[in-house]
Amino acid sequence: MPERIDADVCVVGAGYAGLTSARRLSQNGKSVVVLEARDRVGGRIWTQHLSDGSPVDRGGAWLGPKHDAIFALAHEVGVSTYKTWVKGAHLLVEGDRTRRYTGLIPKISPLAIATLALAQAKIDRLSKQVPLDAPWTAKRAAEWDARSVAWWLERSGIRTTIARDLFEMAVRGLFTGDLNDTSFLHLLFLVRGHGSINTLFSIKGGSQENMVDGGAGSIAQRVAGDLGDAVRLNAPVRSITQHDDHVVVEAGDVVVSARHAVVSVPPALAGDIEFDPVLPADRVALYRAAIAGPESKTLVVYDEPFWRADGFSGQTSQPGSAAEVTLDASPASGSPGVIASFTFGPVATRFDALDPTERRRAVLAALTARLGPRAASPTEFVETAWWSEEWTRGCSMAHFPPGILTRYGPLLREPFGRVHWAGTETSTTSHGSIDGAVRSGERTAAEILDRT
Amino acid sequence: MPERIDADVCVVGAGYAGLTSARRLSQNGKSVVVLEARDRVGGRIWTQHLSDGSPVDRGGAWLGPKHDAIFALAHEVGVSTYKTWVKGAHLLVEGDRTRRYTGLIPKISPLAIATLALAQAKIDRLSKQVPLDAPWTAKRAAEWDARSVAWWLERSGIRTTIARDLFEMAVRGLFTGDLNDTSFLHLLFLVRGHGSINTLFSIKGGSQENMVDGGAGSIAQRVAGDLGDAVRLNAPVRSITQHDDHVVVEAGDVVVSARHAVVSVPPALAGDIEFDPVLPADRVALYRAAIAGPESKTLVVYDEPFWRADGFSGQTSQPGSAAEVTLDASPASGSPGVIASFTFGPVATRFDALDPTERRRAVLAALTARLGPRAASPTEFVETAWWSEEWTRGCSMAHFPPGILTRYGPLLREPFGRVHWAGTETSTTSHGSIDGAVRSGERTAAEILDRT
Repeated sequence: MPERIDADVCVVGAGYAGLTSARRLSQNGKSVVVLEARDRVGGRIWTQHLSDGSPVDRGGAWLGPKHDAIFALAHEVGVSTYKTWVKGAHLLVEGDRTRRYTGLIPKISPLAIATLALAQAKIDRLSKQVPLDAPWTAKRAAEWDARSVAWWLERSGIRTTIARDLFEMAVRGLFTGDLNDTSFLHLLFLVRGHGSINTLFSIKGGSQENMVDGGAGSIAQRVAGDLGDAVRLNAPVRSITQHDDHVVVEAGDVVVSARHAVVSVPPALAGDIEFDPVLPADRVALYRAAIAGPESKTLVVYDEPFWRADGFSGQTSQPGSAAEVTLDASPASGSPGVIASFTFGPVATRFDALDPTERRRAVLAALTARLGPRAASPTEFVETAWWSEEWTRGCSMAHFPPGILTRYGPLLREPFGRVHWAGTETSTTSHGSIDGAVRSGERTAAEILDRT
Repeated sequence: MPERIDADVCVVGAGYAGLTSARRLSQNGKSVVVLEARDRVGGRIWTQHLSDGSPVDRGGAWLGPKHDAIFALAHEVGVSTYKTWVKGAHLLVEGDRTRRYTGLIPKISPLAIATLALAQAKIDRLSKQVPLDAPWTAKRAAEWDARSVAWWLERSGIRTTIARDLFEMAVRGLFTGDLNDTSFLHLLFLVRGHGSINTLFSIKGGSQENMVDGGAGSIAQRVAGDLGDAVRLNAPVRSITQHDDHVVVEAGDVVVSARHAVVSVPPALAGDIEFDPVLPADRVALYRAAIAGPESKTLVVYDEPFWRADGFSGQTSQPGSAAEVTLDASPASGSPGVIASFTFGPVATRFDALDPTERRRAVLAALTARLGPRAASPTEFVETAWWSEEWTRGCSMAHFPPGILTRYGPLLREPFGRVHWAGTETSTTSHGSIDGAVRSGERTAAEILDRT
């Protein structure tokens, strides 16, 4: 017999959205149960400890300067942050040629830089015409949503192959999917939710500015700790049945009866839950379309961040390579040295298909070419292919194909009976980031408190 | 402990595709196991018996003249067919006005008929440019796949509202989804696979020409009977794990180890099976995009087909109403009288949301207005909302949104390791029909026999 629990609210998923929702509801006197499929909390944020005990982030790691909600939550639970290492020269590799540069823009031709800047300014300008809470109501929404990001980039006027490749990779890194599958309106909405496209791309002053002491997962750990027994791990939710005055959420050995539910899992997984009554066709179309992309993050660990002494920042890029983007992801102490190396979308798929030995060789060859021979001998090598994670299915967020936001966008936050929807994909400000997840948790808690 | 079975081939799904594949493999000396989630075989074809024992088809029912594969299978198992009733006047309702007509085209204005004919001729002509086995290689594939059917219809030049509504409803009836979500290339591919668009719309000489004695499900019943214990009901497949030389298919209480698997469930459900190794991102994108639409079929049963004596065929239409299309679906004996009444896509969603009493009232009011007061008092009223069927999720077939066929179409029939793909969505000739399902079963059986 499954265990039966009664609560005011049942939260599905113990990522940052679900945990925040549960915390805020609990702080307002509601009893909550959080059902989590995995044997850990944090969702797309996953801090693991190396053999020497150092924390590393296998998933989401960085916080931007305007990420007030996650900073407030970190502060509440006594977790602090530090600045991502940025000193030294960045590297951009194009074929046989490696360019050293500092700041945001590599030393490519002035014309290329000018066209890049124009394209970015145009995206920023158009994004200002997108209403943050309802991008589908923008005057030109239909036109922008009919086109893919790839279509727009082809016509963006950016000159030189390397500039186009770099920009394409940077945008692909935001969505991680094939940019043919991503609506241009979604890009404008994302940019609108973060202020500017450079905010999304940047370390200093941008989305990669801060890291979390103890790893980004440590905030989730503390929030879950405060919730205590209310968080049930290894409890994948299979069905949600709605009755007149309550919902029943089944998760194998646990059945929760609650007044309301908050579903905080990625949209693609929400559609896999069996609902009774069934989800309407438009909502299913939304969730089926909103898949996240393949993104692989490899943590390459060395005794120390040797590149710093050599004058390198650790930030390197080579679009299409086994290490498309790297960043210095060392702990605040600077020991050990950690390079976080990424592949995105179709490039991730290509390298994920290699056997692990080949892939390791390809990543280390790329790093050695950029950072010198010491890069060839890491002490640890931790790979995470988010596409293959059963309870995430792609990172860092779902991307909307053309035509979806204008038709189904309003459903993102619209309750379905007694079911409320959280998750970073439902948020406006900070859409797609950890901060967006936290904000969506706070919104759903407020929605339920309003109804009760 | 789950029961463990060894077989040459494990077939997932006992619809017409899966059953045919299993039959052909078995006839060629292979041992097979068919795992079916439901407590019945037939899939989207579902024959039920009324209280007097008469068979009625709650799902797929009709066979077209060129549906050689299903006719051959029916013949093999000793099932015969009869012609759908077509004598008498058809009715087209537009607001307060009801038009009687015979043949395919209602008596609308000659200009409207001319523009309808031109639009249909254009679709037929363009469809001839679509290679049947690889529509994505058509010279204009990119252009056609970038546009929705709705987009094309808006520019089709069809004159008068009723003609446009009628044509829109007929095409919506083929796909059942929102035509904004359906690629124009898919329409051309469908038409190419059936010869002409009028074939798809027609009773005489067309897709609705023949019905099956004993119901369309009786063929599946006999095929399953021949397979005997090899068909396992109530066995929903949860996972498929591939090893070097075999696959393991888990379905709750049964675990099958086989040399090959055939997955014959609708694409949207195939994506819900847990694969190890996981399905690549492109295949997931294909299956998530290929959802079927809401389609509801109501069987309204009377003591006799009273409309026949009144000079009506039973074929009526009123786009957007609770009975958008009706057809005479009485058994060969002509007793009882059965009207099959349909709603499609967004219209189905609208009426499915009513409570059953209101919906019954709306359907009977529509039928009474068309066929007279006797229509108000049926002896039975059997509704099937295919969208809510857990193991089908929409009918009659998946529709491909713009951009999907050109990018992912080649995956439809491409094996994934030891897993082969059947189902009417994978077929070319008779794509989307029962005959297409049977053909896909024969193709997958041949593929596996070729490999072994």
